[in-house]
Amino acid sequence: MDIANKSSPFKMKVFILNFIMRIKKLGQDDPRRIAHSFKVALAITLVSMVYYLGPLYKGIGDAGVWAILTVVVVFEYTAGATLCKGMNRGLATLLAGVLGIGAKYLASLFGSKAEPIVLGFLVFLLVTFATFSRFIPHIKRRYDYGVLIFILTFSLVAVSGYRVDKILKLAHQRLSTILIGGATCIVISLCVCPVWAGEDLHNLIVSNLEKLASFLEGFGGEIFEVPLEGDTVGGSNEPDKSFLTAYKSVLNSKATEESLANFAWWEPGHGKFRFSHPWKQYLKIGVLTRQCGYHIEALNGHLDAKFQASSEFSKRVQEPCTKMSSEAGKALKELSKSVKSFSYPSNCTTHLQTCQKAIDEVNTMLKASMVGEFDVLEIIPVITVASTLTKIVKCVETILVATEELSKQAHFKKSLNDAEKLQAHHGGAVASVDDQEEDDIDFVKVIIHKIPSESQKTEDNRG
Amino acid sequence: MDIANKSSPFKMKVFILNFIMRIKKLGQDDPRRIAHSFKVALAITLVSMVYYLGPLYKGIGDAGVWAILTVVVVFEYTAGATLCKGMNRGLATLLAGVLGIGAKYLASLFGSKAEPIVLGFLVFLLVTFATFSRFIPHIKRRYDYGVLIFILTFSLVAVSGYRVDKILKLAHQRLSTILIGGATCIVISLCVCPVWAGEDLHNLIVSNLEKLASFLEGFGGEIFEVPLEGDTVGGSNEPDKSFLTAYKSVLNSKATEESLANFAWWEPGHGKFRFSHPWKQYLKIGVLTRQCGYHIEALNGHLDAKFQASSEFSKRVQEPCTKMSSEAGKALKELSKSVKSFSYPSNCTTHLQTCQKAIDEVNTMLKASMVGEFDVLEIIPVITVASTLTKIVKCVETILVATEELSKQAHFKKSLNDAEKLQAHHGGAVASVDDQEEDDIDFVKVIIHKIPSESQKTEDNRG
Repeated sequence: MDIANKSSPFKMKVFILNFIMRIKKLGQDDPRRIAHSFKVALAITLVSMVYYLGPLYKGIGDAGVWAILTVVVVFEYTAGATLCKGMNRGLATLLAGVLGIGAKYLASLFGSKAEPIVLGFLVFLLVTFATFSRFIPHIKRRYDYGVLIFILTFSLVAVSGYRVDKILKLAHQRLSTILIGGATCIVISLCVCPVWAGEDLHNLIVSNLEKLASFLEGFGGEIFEVPLEGDTVGGSNEPDKSFLTAYKSVLNSKATEESLANFAWWEPGHGKFRFSHPWKQYLKIGVLTRQCGYHIEALNGHLDAKFQASSEFSKRVQEPCTKMSSEAGKALKELSKSVKSFSYPSNCTTHLQTCQKAIDEVNTMLKASMVGEFDVLEIIPVITVASTLTKIVKCVETILVATEELSKQAHFKKSLNDAEKLQAHHGGAVASVDDQEEDDIDFVKVIIHKIPSESQKTEDNRG
Repeated sequence: MDIANKSSPFKMKVFILNFIMRIKKLGQDDPRRIAHSFKVALAITLVSMVYYLGPLYKGIGDAGVWAILTVVVVFEYTAGATLCKGMNRGLATLLAGVLGIGAKYLASLFGSKAEPIVLGFLVFLLVTFATFSRFIPHIKRRYDYGVLIFILTFSLVAVSGYRVDKILKLAHQRLSTILIGGATCIVISLCVCPVWAGEDLHNLIVSNLEKLASFLEGFGGEIFEVPLEGDTVGGSNEPDKSFLTAYKSVLNSKATEESLANFAWWEPGHGKFRFSHPWKQYLKIGVLTRQCGYHIEALNGHLDAKFQASSEFSKRVQEPCTKMSSEAGKALKELSKSVKSFSYPSNCTTHLQTCQKAIDEVNTMLKASMVGEFDVLEIIPVITVASTLTKIVKCVETILVATEELSKQAHFKKSLNDAEKLQAHHGGAVASVDDQEEDDIDFVKVIIHKIPSESQKTEDNRG
């Protein structure tokens, strides 16, 4: 035996082991995936057994086929998606069935010879319009599957060779099987370990804010070279730097957020989420979070070349810059905590005020430093980083405003204590709005300086 | 009649007119949508008429149902997606049918009483595993629909009340109808005004590069306040500024690009695209384009406050910065042209060299300017813009390398003339690689300075 032959089964073993490990990780990452698999299997087994063992059918008949088909295509991962598909399927079948019978009746008026031609023409016409309607953004977002089922059912009913009275019987049978299949899906999806799209969206927004916060909190220590102080103690050579790349996923979260918000729209109230929870406001926070993420991406580009702590200029800027970054991070963390716990954002403003002080400090510092004593090529990246941090602070302020708006719309817990405490601490800096509106009596709003609406504006233009 | 009543039908009219305008625009934006609607209608009408008028069936029977069903669910917008679904459906039905018959046979060995229990258990087991497998990224990407159909067919066959010989007849009938439906879709999708996912991906990459290029070419004129010179002549008050926001769509193009690349994988060779066209390389260019887009987003943040042309400092920096921006834009435009025309990128390097000169100029300028004569708060944004522009130039260089790689992999046209011209013009600056590899005899590669692999690295970490 040569080496190639010997290594081949070994490679196979490694491949299989790798595969198993990856599958295992997939389940561990989100155990709801395993639950979902069992739920689907349960629904299909239930429906097929009902039809297989039912007293009327020895063996599964035409009706059972449609019930199983409905379960297979309707059962989605989240409750919202399942509801969306189930409702779409049911309503579209009903509507298309009625229209199909109408088309058949209309065609029969033309006599038996012309009937197939008229029917063919009607099918062609309706399918063309229905298919085109799937390109309309609003329909695509919410009723895409319904239009598909509409096309299917209309064609089937219109072209079926049966007379209208037989169709009615068939329609009754088919609708009832779809109802049974759809209801099974919806009940199992909503009652057995439900996966709520709304909750996923909520958690996604929270974790995205957290990721940005972690980056900002750690950024100061990364960009300025800090003398090692027992960093390598404990045997682990490398400290965990995952927070430096975690934010990347935020940049591409738009599609996920939008589809989750779509499905969340279909979900009934559950837990702390009411039926008309302001999902759109989550999307707005998402947009602002990504905006902030783009600036962080720019910061990340500077991490390749650390700023030398030995340089006099770096030393001077290090403290306020690090403070700016870490306080902006803390503010974001407060916001993510507030969304997570369904409570009004409270301590965030303190951090933003500290940020503003740090910004002023950096500006004064830069003013004083620019007397030609430093190497300009060394200064430029430091100035760029400081300027980007300033922009990030502004972004955090817009996120704060959006989160406050969410708190109002979603009726988050208002903690009067926090508001009072804050007012006592910061006096005039806090502009409580309770003079203007009685509803918002505890709603404390701090605006450090005018927030540019730039990010919202540009997002609107994105179209 | 009061005003409310009067305005109500008027509102209705406006609403309907608006709606019609939007529908019309939808068709004008991409006439292929109208063609697609007609194609789907044609396929469904054809299939249903064949079954409706067929000599064997008076009226549509069970078989016709499955053919129509197949057409409705398989016919997708792009040829690749249709092929993907059609192939998945055919193969999954075949595999699941065979396995289903096997399961039935196995269950029958346990006697008639235990049979339903064994069958139910087998269905439960297989559906659980198949559903879980849909979470595996590779399967989700390419075979998601196949697994769905596998679950459906397996359940149907296993639970059907028929004996194995009858199942074989049924399976034959069902497979043939699916083949007819699938083949109709694929033939119409590939032959009547085909919409190629690959071509769409190609055009998307080209247009994304163009959008970034337009922004960069116009940026210099926007950020530095230029005295108006008959800008408002001609009656139009506002010049077209759409290039300032067009780039935004680039930032969120990841999902679209990936799904197009997936579907393109299924498409046969067509036009200038061979069967094994390097679609993955397009995705790499897409990643780098987005990277560049993030920097442009940072630049865009500065457009709120224009730099005063009156300021001495602005004046000095204006020329090299504008040059840097516009030359980087020209380089990107060259790259987009080269991809568009399937030819090696050639003039791009000239622009990048000009960029490099402009970078050096700005640096020298800054060095000379930093003698405390300017207001630091005014200088900071200018320095930030210059520094961001430098990063953009680096990004463009990575895009150049990726595009050259694409040119090689996709066997783009090599124009010897261009290469010779370039060498004659720039002499030593151009390092032709034809000394090393005979294959690349015309492939001229200019690397101005070492390109950091940062952007690729980070993308890999994104996971």
